[in-house]
Amino acid sequence: MPSPNNMSNATEGRWPDDVGIIATEIYFPSQYVDQEQLEIFDGIPAGKYTIGLGQSKMGFCTDCEDINSLCLTAVQNLMDRNQITYDSIGRLEVGTETIIDKSKSVKTVLMQLFGDSGNTSVEGIDTTNACYGGTAALFNAAAWVESSAWDGRYALVVAGDIAVYATGNARPTGGAGAIAMLVGPNAPLVLERGLRHTHMEHVYDFYKPDMASEYPRVDGKLSIQCYLGALDKCYQGYCVKAEAQMQKEGDSSHYTMDRFDAMCFHSPFCKLVQKSLARLMLNDFMRDPKPDTNDGGRYAGLRGYKDLKLEETFMDREVEKAFMNCSKEMFAAKTKPSTLVANQVGNMYTPSLYGGLVSFLASCNLAELPGKRIGLFSYGSGLAASLFSLQVKGDTAPGSPLWKLRSSLDDLKFRLDSRRCVEPSVFAETMKLREDTHHLAKYTPVGSIADLFPGTWYLTYVDEMHRRKYSSKPSSNLPSPRVDKVPVSSLINS
Amino acid sequence: MPSPNNMSNATEGRWPDDVGIIATEIYFPSQYVDQEQLEIFDGIPAGKYTIGLGQSKMGFCTDCEDINSLCLTAVQNLMDRNQITYDSIGRLEVGTETIIDKSKSVKTVLMQLFGDSGNTSVEGIDTTNACYGGTAALFNAAAWVESSAWDGRYALVVAGDIAVYATGNARPTGGAGAIAMLVGPNAPLVLERGLRHTHMEHVYDFYKPDMASEYPRVDGKLSIQCYLGALDKCYQGYCVKAEAQMQKEGDSSHYTMDRFDAMCFHSPFCKLVQKSLARLMLNDFMRDPKPDTNDGGRYAGLRGYKDLKLEETFMDREVEKAFMNCSKEMFAAKTKPSTLVANQVGNMYTPSLYGGLVSFLASCNLAELPGKRIGLFSYGSGLAASLFSLQVKGDTAPGSPLWKLRSSLDDLKFRLDSRRCVEPSVFAETMKLREDTHHLAKYTPVGSIADLFPGTWYLTYVDEMHRRKYSSKPSSNLPSPRVDKVPVSSLINS
Repeated sequence: MPSPNNMSNATEGRWPDDVGIIATEIYFPSQYVDQEQLEIFDGIPAGKYTIGLGQSKMGFCTDCEDINSLCLTAVQNLMDRNQITYDSIGRLEVGTETIIDKSKSVKTVLMQLFGDSGNTSVEGIDTTNACYGGTAALFNAAAWVESSAWDGRYALVVAGDIAVYATGNARPTGGAGAIAMLVGPNAPLVLERGLRHTHMEHVYDFYKPDMASEYPRVDGKLSIQCYLGALDKCYQGYCVKAEAQMQKEGDSSHYTMDRFDAMCFHSPFCKLVQKSLARLMLNDFMRDPKPDTNDGGRYAGLRGYKDLKLEETFMDREVEKAFMNCSKEMFAAKTKPSTLVANQVGNMYTPSLYGGLVSFLASCNLAELPGKRIGLFSYGSGLAASLFSLQVKGDTAPGSPLWKLRSSLDDLKFRLDSRRCVEPSVFAETMKLREDTHHLAKYTPVGSIADLFPGTWYLTYVDEMHRRKYSSKPSSNLPSPRVDKVPVSSLINS
Repeated sequence: MPSPNNMSNATEGRWPDDVGIIATEIYFPSQYVDQEQLEIFDGIPAGKYTIGLGQSKMGFCTDCEDINSLCLTAVQNLMDRNQITYDSIGRLEVGTETIIDKSKSVKTVLMQLFGDSGNTSVEGIDTTNACYGGTAALFNAAAWVESSAWDGRYALVVAGDIAVYATGNARPTGGAGAIAMLVGPNAPLVLERGLRHTHMEHVYDFYKPDMASEYPRVDGKLSIQCYLGALDKCYQGYCVKAEAQMQKEGDSSHYTMDRFDAMCFHSPFCKLVQKSLARLMLNDFMRDPKPDTNDGGRYAGLRGYKDLKLEETFMDREVEKAFMNCSKEMFAAKTKPSTLVANQVGNMYTPSLYGGLVSFLASCNLAELPGKRIGLFSYGSGLAASLFSLQVKGDTAPGSPLWKLRSSLDDLKFRLDSRRCVEPSVFAETMKLREDTHHLAKYTPVGSIADLFPGTWYLTYVDEMHRRKYSSKPSSNLPSPRVDKVPVSSLINS
């Protein structure tokens, strides 16, 4: 890592170069339930979860992990694996919708990690709107680095959540995890300036008004409509901004999905991600003054859809099918690689989109990464959504920031595969245990510590005043970055 | 207001000039309970609330106001009174610890106000850590304006809370309200660049682990220690940064409180604010290599305290008394004027510090404002704290931004005085009503709409799915900015 002091040009009144993501660390639970087995256990037709939702495995936590422990784990592993010192962090913001205290932020709990360094001057607290909090924290961190408040130190962004649902249709769309991201200048993943569009609305599609419960209220159909509608708005706004930049450079063509090498989405379930890419192709089709609908053309056979109104197509199965078919190759090339973690862990809420990003990066060989442009769509119910883009920059020499970032993902497959498969009945019992013990005072968790990954933080006790105590397992076995990498695209079930 | 488009220099890669607060709007409930009456009602010795805590009146809400309605009111009044159009807002972030949904942000509820404008491209969500959320939102908004993400539009910061306590010692330290602040360049209240220091720690001094209740857990003694300890750290860090700036300009003197024309504090209760100013004087005394302890000197008679260790004095009554005595004049001049709203409304949590800021501004004649430097100390339990400063800039000509800002506070006294005084028994019944109906579904609030101020939003119904519906009273009678202003410093009870 470059010395923080060398990075600062705050006194010049200018933005530093190439602000973006320097390093990432993903954490997911060491156990999962298999979705095929869950179909049988739930007594529903085979394929409903695996094909209908596109999910293979669902990670979950016992009662010995909570939002604080997940974020402690992600941050400590990021710091250790990248050999960053705690005094080089000037900002830390947490995005989460797993609220276990209405006042005290997860961020303040993470300050425990800074104890030995003596660094207490760390800006940023928690930010919340459903699954959008991680993106808000990332945008805030990047703005801080570009602002006069920046003091040359790194920013840390942490997105973490435990997604659990009451028994019923939504239960297989759970998940859990956390991602920590180091943000600063001269990053290998650069936030493209001026290229993002945000759409926010007041809607009750998914929300958590039952404060005592971990479970949300969901209007599934409405939420999908809101997601796809926000995707339309964000993409349209993004295209306007991108085209304005292109015109400045003498390019008067339309912006299309061709300009993204990869497209990552927030993933409530993987099937929606595939539908979302189709939706962007539908947008390109509608924006194209002369779409090639001839045989062999990109939009072959779709001429009849030209007079559609986008806002009337959210639940139109025929249109959906036509554009999913038309976008099949684009999905395989640009989006499917990013669904690995979502498929294998489930919906992690705020980290979901960034699980997509690390999945995509892990699917690529280092040599092919430089120059790639990655589109990202972040959605949080309620609703808040943004579409933005990253560009991969930097050289691939061993020890370079890009090499380090990519190398840190070499063990993603190993870590996913080394998880324990747990019977659906045990999963159901665990959910019941969480229900029964959620927010209990004078409570000692009963979940197995032995089964946790090395380096995992866990809850040891909630005292009579609801104060939470944590401990951690030694992290001795974490692999360090290697030169040879294995693309993991072949691992993705569909 | 300047046209947002004229403000943008985002393409230049430089920070715009004078980023800060352009306009403010404070909202507090139209009713209050008198603290003297509350002392009698609670059967405690006279003066405990009024002199011991330094509180005169406490604002509170019936069941027809919640965090969403408070923020709706503050934003709409700000927009209306300053004649700002909703399409000129590019960012809106809410700081609050009044959480009534674990996922859906207050920000998304505020998007209802943007409906007619068609503007849905508004970044920012909610941010939480006890009373610090408003400050985090302000820092984020200012960084956004200085960053590449800024599109030339204004940012809005909203801080709002309902502070209520279970019956007992802490109950008289409640309050309620919201403040909206317009943030952008060329502001009359400029955030001084490079001059802020933040201190964060993991501590359980005040927190809200009981998700179903509105009431917090408080360790009062610990919280005061934490507050004063964070004040020490923040002021020391601020001084280091200020002295570094001074040295660049050839000034090698120590930074002292003399350089602030006013000092505003987060105010849990006004007595703590007075102790806090005394604490800063103690810090100046300790930092002074040769404090003048002779008769007639600033620190007359305090020589014996020179060997104190700061961290051992948090609960030392003798030291506290000595420095409160020594800082009496400074308190009257620099801080007491800022305690008006805190004294008259109570602790509003996130808006508290900014209630101090508007109280100070309202206490000054317009002509004396330009050039004034205002120190601000923000504290949120858990804990997160920052000390930063604003400088008043701009001319005082009618119609200027500073004139408008100051004029908008002309009616502060009128609004405080026009509130309804409610019997302590009615206040207690209202608290019980809130307890009994908090989070109820299929609930129609029973609180009087007639008693609300004009322009107030209120909750009309919580449906069976916990979706909340709001309406608002006409705002026809809001006074518009005038030229003649009345200083309100004379109104402050002590």
